[in-house]
Amino acid sequence: MNNCKTQMQAAKTGILTKQMIAVSEKEGISPEILMERIARGTVAIPCNINHKCIDPCGVGEGLKTKINVNIGVSGDICNYESERKKAQIAAKLGADAIMDLSNCGKTASFRQELIDTSSAMIGTVPIYDAVGYLEKELFEIAAREFIDVLRAHAVQGVDFMTIHAGLNKRCVEKVLSCKRKMNLVSRGGALLFAWMLETGNENPFYENFDEVLDIFAQYDVTASLGDGLRPGCIADGTDIAQISELTELGILTQRAWDKNVQVMIEGPGHIALNEIGANVTVQKKICKNAPFYVLGPIVTDIAPGYDHITSAIGGAVAGAYGADFLCYVTPAEHLRLPDADDVKEGIIACKIAAHAADIAKGIPNAADIDNKMARARQAVDFDKMLDLAIDREKAERYYKSTSPSEKGTCTMCGKMCAVKTVNKALEKYFGKN
Amino acid sequence: MNNCKTQMQAAKTGILTKQMIAVSEKEGISPEILMERIARGTVAIPCNINHKCIDPCGVGEGLKTKINVNIGVSGDICNYESERKKAQIAAKLGADAIMDLSNCGKTASFRQELIDTSSAMIGTVPIYDAVGYLEKELFEIAAREFIDVLRAHAVQGVDFMTIHAGLNKRCVEKVLSCKRKMNLVSRGGALLFAWMLETGNENPFYENFDEVLDIFAQYDVTASLGDGLRPGCIADGTDIAQISELTELGILTQRAWDKNVQVMIEGPGHIALNEIGANVTVQKKICKNAPFYVLGPIVTDIAPGYDHITSAIGGAVAGAYGADFLCYVTPAEHLRLPDADDVKEGIIACKIAAHAADIAKGIPNAADIDNKMARARQAVDFDKMLDLAIDREKAERYYKSTSPSEKGTCTMCGKMCAVKTVNKALEKYFGKN
Repeated sequence: MNNCKTQMQAAKTGILTKQMIAVSEKEGISPEILMERIARGTVAIPCNINHKCIDPCGVGEGLKTKINVNIGVSGDICNYESERKKAQIAAKLGADAIMDLSNCGKTASFRQELIDTSSAMIGTVPIYDAVGYLEKELFEIAAREFIDVLRAHAVQGVDFMTIHAGLNKRCVEKVLSCKRKMNLVSRGGALLFAWMLETGNENPFYENFDEVLDIFAQYDVTASLGDGLRPGCIADGTDIAQISELTELGILTQRAWDKNVQVMIEGPGHIALNEIGANVTVQKKICKNAPFYVLGPIVTDIAPGYDHITSAIGGAVAGAYGADFLCYVTPAEHLRLPDADDVKEGIIACKIAAHAADIAKGIPNAADIDNKMARARQAVDFDKMLDLAIDREKAERYYKSTSPSEKGTCTMCGKMCAVKTVNKALEKYFGKN
Repeated sequence: MNNCKTQMQAAKTGILTKQMIAVSEKEGISPEILMERIARGTVAIPCNINHKCIDPCGVGEGLKTKINVNIGVSGDICNYESERKKAQIAAKLGADAIMDLSNCGKTASFRQELIDTSSAMIGTVPIYDAVGYLEKELFEIAAREFIDVLRAHAVQGVDFMTIHAGLNKRCVEKVLSCKRKMNLVSRGGALLFAWMLETGNENPFYENFDEVLDIFAQYDVTASLGDGLRPGCIADGTDIAQISELTELGILTQRAWDKNVQVMIEGPGHIALNEIGANVTVQKKICKNAPFYVLGPIVTDIAPGYDHITSAIGGAVAGAYGADFLCYVTPAEHLRLPDADDVKEGIIACKIAAHAADIAKGIPNAADIDNKMARARQAVDFDKMLDLAIDREKAERYYKSTSPSEKGTCTMCGKMCAVKTVNKALEKYFGKN
């Protein structure tokens, strides 16, 4: 019988859990190798003991790159129905995780509904919810009360939580001294920063990290160690503040593992394309190959309205270098709360990035579906191409919007279709194509 | 007085042309350094002596990454007015080049109109136009007649022409022996392949390469040496056929330079993310640092409807490794002739890729506009952010579609805006932000 509280504890004890077996089957890797990686912390299976309907999902070394979809009401647009719709879109499009970033209104009941109905991993950022949960102003919240909110999320069944535990007083000094263009752009980081300045106290998640870990261990919540100092512009990327906080996260990673708490490390942000490889390498080294969960990165600051594209570029490259988990970014980033269409566009762009990364990093069989598409194209079988398309609805709408004069072509080339031309020539001269 | 026929000849002779001076000013580099690069062939200024209204543009070593927009009527959709509209969109959005790929109807008059009204570089693929121009079936066209079409384009003022001169008999043998999943997907390559099989003759552009070069030298047409064997799927990327043709292009590059003809090398295509760096390195080495003009590359085959995104990923990475010129890909790729909206989406995605590449490859001052955006964001100045956005119209439409309750925020975070939170805290405790 398995008396272990967390997947990591079980793995260290040599116990194969049903979650490990489920993940090993989905990923097509041996359960023993998976177990060994969970024991070392290079793979996490975020899976709260109270999230009963979860379809277990692994994040990390050698596994397919996963994607996360953020939803949640904001103070300005507090419409739970539209957030419910986004969660449905995420489920339909196969998102691996949904983070509920709600920060006003009836957050607890919405979160519970989400956990009770989602097979995807559910993540939260408890500090977003603190003001609403406690019905207090930020500066009136005591350190202990932040922990209470986190415990409430854990009891409900949240699988992973972002805590900005690395943003301690040492880091605050660093960010003040290094004269960034954009200071802090993390919402959680900014709230903690302001609270620390106002109260003069240490970061409550850092100061009470052992207690946080005990709560996480009790429910097997994975600690997603947040980057409160992630850069908010290309110029601030890979700077002293960012890397200082990463070193704090590296120290906290070992402390979490020592208590059998699974860990993911959150990463930037806004990073120039040529710095992405270095970011992944440094994270992997400093955090002992803990899974890397990146937001974007977006590779230029000048494309609001298109940050699903700027982040698809950065996410694909980060994934190819070894990032394990991509947080989607929608076209609405920097401009408004995303609507349902934005969510869909963000998810597709992120899936493309993750898939391109999986091919690049040599995930076994990742390119099988590309090869099927190649065969369909070689056979100019448009029905099959539409079946294989990442978004059949859009591909079909495009294809059927114009009428090629010749079957088995499209209006781009029509009779000049290169594939048909070559197939015909090969058939004529070699009796094959 | 400058009696040189081509920019390359002038550069070799030590003559600074007005085109070189214009380019050096736009790029912010010394005219002498630019001239030396043109002499060596690492930079091209495609600029036909008969394209009077051109705004000269440089492509290659140390210069900003350029983008090309394909337009042109197809047999199925022969609507010149819609192609005219696409050219206007390209001009408005700042495309550096427009390729007219028209292959039916009154191609000559449309092409002339395009040349007479465009300050962007104009490119064509003469073989697309041969059947229409000569009013003959493909197999009835004599080798000489292909050259006649090319000469007609040169006289009209086309700045660069794609000729698949590397696809000679040696290469045809290679592609037949290497058992690709997708054979040929280049339209021009496929036409030549079929013509060569049918007639038994050598590729007319290869066989008459010296005559082609004499025509190009007379009008200063830049040879864009096409990749008729570019891979049509990830599985065929970087294969024997592709690299064999590249080696032929390397040989032809030196022959062109010896006749003072400027050269660009066209590249793939469908390439896995982890092979893009190798493709750029090999092209640069084999073709002695001739400018590299890539179509995409797209990094997965499964996203018809989103190939502006798959190619933005590949194009940004290729550019960061040193590719000089990106051909846009629209969401309509593989599905239909693009419409005006597709063209716009394709251009913006390509501009994002080129800009991200410029930051990564260290083009001086490339990130200036990103830094301006960072300052606007730090000041929560949304008007300024919209002014700096790559597509102000879309960014403004998004921003104004919802109403934040607090000025200087958006509905994503509203009162929880990280930047405002930190600015307020810094103001309160340090009297600054």
